[in-house]
Amino acid sequence: MTTFTDHTLTEIRRDLHRHPEEGWKEFRTTALVAEELDERGFELWLGAEAVNVEERLGVPSDDEIAAARERARREGAPEEYLDWMGDVTGLVAKKRYGDGPTVGVRVDVDALARPEASDDDHRPAREGFASTHPSEMHACGHDGHTAIGIGVARAFDEEGFDGTLKLFFQPAEEGGRGGKPMSETEHLDDVDALVALHLGLGEETGTVVGGYDRPLSNAKVDVTFEGEPAHAGGAPNEGRNALQALGTALQNLYAIPRHSEGKTRINVGQVHADNAQNVICEEARMRVEVRGEDADLNDYMMDRAERVVESAAEMHDVGYETSLYGMTTTFENDESVVQTVMRAAETVDGVDHVCGRSPFGGSEDASFLVRRVQENGGVASYVGIGASNPAGHHTAYFDIDEDALDIGVGVVTETVRRLAAGT
Amino acid sequence: MTTFTDHTLTEIRRDLHRHPEEGWKEFRTTALVAEELDERGFELWLGAEAVNVEERLGVPSDDEIAAARERARREGAPEEYLDWMGDVTGLVAKKRYGDGPTVGVRVDVDALARPEASDDDHRPAREGFASTHPSEMHACGHDGHTAIGIGVARAFDEEGFDGTLKLFFQPAEEGGRGGKPMSETEHLDDVDALVALHLGLGEETGTVVGGYDRPLSNAKVDVTFEGEPAHAGGAPNEGRNALQALGTALQNLYAIPRHSEGKTRINVGQVHADNAQNVICEEARMRVEVRGEDADLNDYMMDRAERVVESAAEMHDVGYETSLYGMTTTFENDESVVQTVMRAAETVDGVDHVCGRSPFGGSEDASFLVRRVQENGGVASYVGIGASNPAGHHTAYFDIDEDALDIGVGVVTETVRRLAAGT
Amino acid sequence: MTTFTDHTLTEIRRDLHRHPEEGWKEFRTTALVAEELDERGFELWLGAEAVNVEERLGVPSDDEIAAARERARREGAPEEYLDWMGDVTGLVAKKRYGDGPTVGVRVDVDALARPEASDDDHRPAREGFASTHPSEMHACGHDGHTAIGIGVARAFDEEGFDGTLKLFFQPAEEGGRGGKPMSETEHLDDVDALVALHLGLGEETGTVVGGYDRPLSNAKVDVTFEGEPAHAGGAPNEGRNALQALGTALQNLYAIPRHSEGKTRINVGQVHADNAQNVICEEARMRVEVRGEDADLNDYMMDRAERVVESAAEMHDVGYETSLYGMTTTFENDESVVQTVMRAAETVDGVDHVCGRSPFGGSEDASFLVRRVQENGGVASYVGIGASNPAGHHTAYFDIDEDALDIGVGVVTETVRRLAAGT
Amino acid sequence: MTTFTDHTLTEIRRDLHRHPEEGWKEFRTTALVAEELDERGFELWLGAEAVNVEERLGVPSDDEIAAARERARREGAPEEYLDWMGDVTGLVAKKRYGDGPTVGVRVDVDALARPEASDDDHRPAREGFASTHPSEMHACGHDGHTAIGIGVARAFDEEGFDGTLKLFFQPAEEGGRGGKPMSETEHLDDVDALVALHLGLGEETGTVVGGYDRPLSNAKVDVTFEGEPAHAGGAPNEGRNALQALGTALQNLYAIPRHSEGKTRINVGQVHADNAQNVICEEARMRVEVRGEDADLNDYMMDRAERVVESAAEMHDVGYETSLYGMTTTFENDESVVQTVMRAAETVDGVDHVCGRSPFGGSEDASFLVRRVQENGGVASYVGIGASNPAGHHTAYFDIDEDALDIGVGVVTETVRRLAAGT
Repeated sequence: MTTFTDHTLTEIRRDLHRHPEEGWKEFRTTALVAEELDERGFELWLGAEAVNVEERLGVPSDDEIAAARERARREGAPEEYLDWMGDVTGLVAKKRYGDGPTVGVRVDVDALARPEASDDDHRPAREGFASTHPSEMHACGHDGHTAIGIGVARAFDEEGFDGTLKLFFQPAEEGGRGGKPMSETEHLDDVDALVALHLGLGEETGTVVGGYDRPLSNAKVDVTFEGEPAHAGGAPNEGRNALQALGTALQNLYAIPRHSEGKTRINVGQVHADNAQNVICEEARMRVEVRGEDADLNDYMMDRAERVVESAAEMHDVGYETSLYGMTTTFENDESVVQTVMRAAETVDGVDHVCGRSPFGGSEDASFLVRRVQENGGVASYVGIGASNPAGHHTAYFDIDEDALDIGVGVVTETVRRLAAGT
Repeated sequence: MTTFTDHTLTEIRRDLHRHPEEGWKEFRTTALVAEELDERGFELWLGAEAVNVEERLGVPSDDEIAAARERARREGAPEEYLDWMGDVTGLVAKKRYGDGPTVGVRVDVDALARPEASDDDHRPAREGFASTHPSEMHACGHDGHTAIGIGVARAFDEEGFDGTLKLFFQPAEEGGRGGKPMSETEHLDDVDALVALHLGLGEETGTVVGGYDRPLSNAKVDVTFEGEPAHAGGAPNEGRNALQALGTALQNLYAIPRHSEGKTRINVGQVHADNAQNVICEEARMRVEVRGEDADLNDYMMDRAERVVESAAEMHDVGYETSLYGMTTTFENDESVVQTVMRAAETVDGVDHVCGRSPFGGSEDASFLVRRVQENGGVASYVGIGASNPAGHHTAYFDIDEDALDIGVGVVTETVRRLAAGT
Repeated sequence: MTTFTDHTLTEIRRDLHRHPEEGWKEFRTTALVAEELDERGFELWLGAEAVNVEERLGVPSDDEIAAARERARREGAPEEYLDWMGDVTGLVAKKRYGDGPTVGVRVDVDALARPEASDDDHRPAREGFASTHPSEMHACGHDGHTAIGIGVARAFDEEGFDGTLKLFFQPAEEGGRGGKPMSETEHLDDVDALVALHLGLGEETGTVVGGYDRPLSNAKVDVTFEGEPAHAGGAPNEGRNALQALGTALQNLYAIPRHSEGKTRINVGQVHADNAQNVICEEARMRVEVRGEDADLNDYMMDRAERVVESAAEMHDVGYETSLYGMTTTFENDESVVQTVMRAAETVDGVDHVCGRSPFGGSEDASFLVRRVQENGGVASYVGIGASNPAGHHTAYFDIDEDALDIGVGVVTETVRRLAAGT
Repeated sequence: MTTFTDHTLTEIRRDLHRHPEEGWKEFRTTALVAEELDERGFELWLGAEAVNVEERLGVPSDDEIAAARERARREGAPEEYLDWMGDVTGLVAKKRYGDGPTVGVRVDVDALARPEASDDDHRPAREGFASTHPSEMHACGHDGHTAIGIGVARAFDEEGFDGTLKLFFQPAEEGGRGGKPMSETEHLDDVDALVALHLGLGEETGTVVGGYDRPLSNAKVDVTFEGEPAHAGGAPNEGRNALQALGTALQNLYAIPRHSEGKTRINVGQVHADNAQNVICEEARMRVEVRGEDADLNDYMMDRAERVVESAAEMHDVGYETSLYGMTTTFENDESVVQTVMRAAETVDGVDHVCGRSPFGGSEDASFLVRRVQENGGVASYVGIGASNPAGHHTAYFDIDEDALDIGVGVVTETVRRLAAGT
């Protein structure tokens, strides 16, 4: 497929599923979406126009980005929009239908860095739309989110509504890398109400959750310890051992004291040191994630973690660098929007169960967009669209029930209409 | 170059330098050497005939070996010998010139896994024979060792000597992976005297060391900790954290007590854990190296290291596996061979300084071949051929003075002749 | 004072405050209480008759107990009851007033191991009733609890009530050492309703809390690592280092993963290793405390802590022993008793504020007595008697407003009466 | 015994053995020695006249010193010399016999902090001269050294020699606490030759070692981590945990890299934290010892250890203090003195085996006195006087063969005579 027009949302979702693109590599996805919205008369902002380039987090190397862009071209991304984007993904689109308020809809478009199951137990494999990219997979439903975003744009074609629609196709949600840079633009300043959404999350098709509240704040930090090599047999005392620093940090990060005021978490993910076994380690890297039940608790963990890393480096006389890989914050939905979503959902075909607010156990960088809108005096909610899944999010057998796509479009469309109308 | 015949040793050395092959991947090198020796009338044993396949250490994956073999084919390795080798490198060659004793010569042929300098300060780059393989480099002189091995074979063509020559082109010396499997064959059982050699080692061209003694015993072990993943935010208590086990092991490995009876060493080289930052780590790997001034001290370190690893796994309720990656032992040269080498060296053009025995600070898996010969009642020495180097062994700017090649051939040839003659 | 009879509760409390006795050393306190209750016609069980000797936790050494007993004798404890007790403290007393139910009242009698402030800012010092025992102090109000226990016994002298009164003077509450052994006797089997009480806890005089709920479960464990000494200079490898084991355990205990289902805590208190600095450490001891929001979470921490300790010992090839120093569990009060307490409190002079249930942040080994009664089909509550304090519990300037003593007696007496009457 | 005069060296040694005094507590020992030397006409310097008070290391508390002084008085130490000493032990004594050179003799007088065996397998117990001080014992032969010092003073009474004798009765050798402050006075500036000595050290009675060379340099440091307490259950995040800092330091101290240039050692001895188990640790102490084959290697260990301690404190946001507890350095004997000792020994009754120089495995703070003399252009040797021992130095069953006392006096006297005479 090299253009979305004339294709159904299910076809589009399956095409995206076959061509998953990790964060900051969503060139094909973004270009095809841009093409369709351009045809439908939306005003577009692409790439560096859509996100604050300086604020991007966890950006891949130039080589990786160039390769992803080249792959997108090979796989049919329209040249015009690739050129427009340059090296940066991200899309904001706006269309005025009437004089009423501006309502924003945010969907995330990136895939995960993990292989997909390829056996016949897995419907995408059985039916021929499993990922064709070896280590990327839409295992969190963002292919469906993107399709719903297009569905919402299409839905107002005929009837419109009394207001302006603003669509945010956010890159790099996984790892919390794209929300912050998209929020630090002026695109949200005229948004009166914002709806973000997620498919699945443990709810069956037909269920709608008016608003997921209070995601955990988190921060992901890449740490590199930089020592001095030396021959481990001949002159161990002459080295400055980056790996001993990392080992000391590891032990002490997990031992950061529990906090009396709420949940805190810490974890170390990737760890790498590539040096030969007979060389005192010159460079060792790790990726750390902290969380807190609120921003203060997250800061507590972050401060303690930084202290541990700094002192571990000092202890072994090595240097270190940290860079923020990703970040999310927390928020509370506006009750008025939650109520609007619930009323809207009641009217949508296929919806059989409507819930109110629910705490969100995980983290989400839509949080930055929600807060930006709220800080400007707007209102927002992060809506759940039930979608039956055969296997858990982020696993190799994840899939979504495609019936949820139309439900998603219906709930969002009707919510937008009511938010604009104030009903 | 797709055949060595008619090329000088310097040309051969430069060809090998351009096509370095890591341990167990020396298909092109071995095939070209085999071709030349075959033409010269040597009896050949190749691949699984030359090494004990079961005893190989640190063997790359099947895919890596297949790729290396395919590359060798592309780069001109003669098909006949590639077929003969199958998936295993290694070559033993034998030729009878007279009734006297059998004298063995052992050279190692593998390259290191590291990139080579590509700027004009580096002669191989300046003169166009730097490595064409991105992450492999002859940074320890084994290209020169291989050329000397061929030179020795050529040297007896006209005059011969009163005995049998047996050449051992050993794979995978780096990491101590090929010496043990080559020693555990019957090829050394009829060897009355063995000469192994190394270029450089801090000595200038023109210097010859009669025998390097007592290399450190060492052992390299790959450790994999196998835990159970869990969401680091949602259910940290449900995971079994392979990375915490690794961190605990790291800290305690370096803290193994010093030994009153001599030098011991420990180092951790590669460390890898690839899991996502929000997942309790499922698998973490590290490569550990221990050394001891003698085999008992090496065993002491090995036993303690195993205890640390086992207990660290137990502490965090994770499984673990260890596999031996490489191994060396120690030896003393036979004084009679050292004396023969010294007398021989005095007669060779270009030699201006002859030393006796010297302690060997590093480790060498020629040790296994030397001990096998000695256990069978034979004699041996590990000889140093000085070769001026612009930069240290194993570094990106390493190179050897090619004048040392003829000196090496001269010293070894004359030593072989004298060992056979008993003079 | 060498007898309580004819003294007011305030006088008794002050006498006890001057003669504080740590857990399992309350010989004087217990003997004097026993004497008074004996005179009032109670049936008595003392020492090994009152607690399950085998189940005692955190028992001091024989020498320490003998010294405490001797001190009690010197300070006027009546011989008869000292003899009766033998080496074990603890007292259960019973008196039948009528045919109705048996109601139990539990007070704890031990002091803390800490010095008391001696300056004039501290009323007990100013008024001459500060501790005369250098490192013991009633800094948690148990002197008042004991006095209230006597007050309750006295209160029924004239009018009685329609039932049986059973008084539990529990030793060694601090550290959670005496509750369990007192609960593992048959004394609680005939108790239909149990009231335990605590003074202070942040509430002012005049406030009564109907029931403190859900104290944290905890466990305190003493760990001894037993290694093998060796000269640290001459033969470090021959030692087995108990201190390295302790260090490894320390680091990993604090790193036990947080639990998704609720609060957990861990702390290491006392740590001791007495060996000379030039000897590899032979013995190292520590005291560990774990807590959990419920018994399962406490067990989770305990299991993990044991695994850490065992593996740390194994890692350094040392032995270890653990012994339970103290333990508490959790419980929920019976709503019927809470209501009764509240109704009773409304009738008592000096009470101006009556609350219902409140969560209990700390730990309490009355929990074992409460659960035993509940398991037998009885009911119970742990009641708070407000008592203004100039300084926090367990600190050097702690004191209680003695007006709370009569309030305590009033509330308990009236509660007992109503529980027996079922009103 | 309350005066040494008229007693034999064996009687004196046994009296000292019954009254052992730890470092900086040697009041009785020093006073009795002073009395005898005073009677024999020596000029005396006592206490603060004999050692540099500011440079004392590992000094006990004022209370401990006062108690030791009081005990000495009780046990018969002559008042006059107790008064003279004040609170400081140490004695230098000088007597001029002729015009020749000044020869110094250094003996150490302190006992160890350890209990002595009390059963009949132990001769001192069997024969009634075991220690009467519960936790002090002469388990390193310094009682014999002191007796030999007196014997040397007596030996010159009749014949004298052509020079000046200077006797150094050094306190606090154990732990390396007294050598440095005694060396930092002017008493050594006029010493032309110095003899120090040790009994036993694995040699049988009758053997003499001309000079023990190159003791290990060492340093002992007391570290105190100072945190902030908090309730471990209620507010773990509010504490600053001194014990976590200590745990991190412990793990990393033992992991200081081995040094390529020689032996290094590290050990942690005493560790103490006294806080309650439910309080985040406020203060934790440890005593660390480092050693190196020479002063540079000792410095390497010391620098690394300080870095570890500082960073561990920083990591856990706690303060720390370090204080030097003891210190030794290294030296080489002067060959001329070694030769003189050997020649002298040949002439002494009971000597049957004379050795030259021998490396000294342990540490000795005579090193500071030796170096001071050598820096001033003098010569010195540290002499071994064989003395059969039933059990190892520093153990409960240590004893010395008293026949070695006269041998010691003989060897030293004859050496002094020859050093003065230059023969």
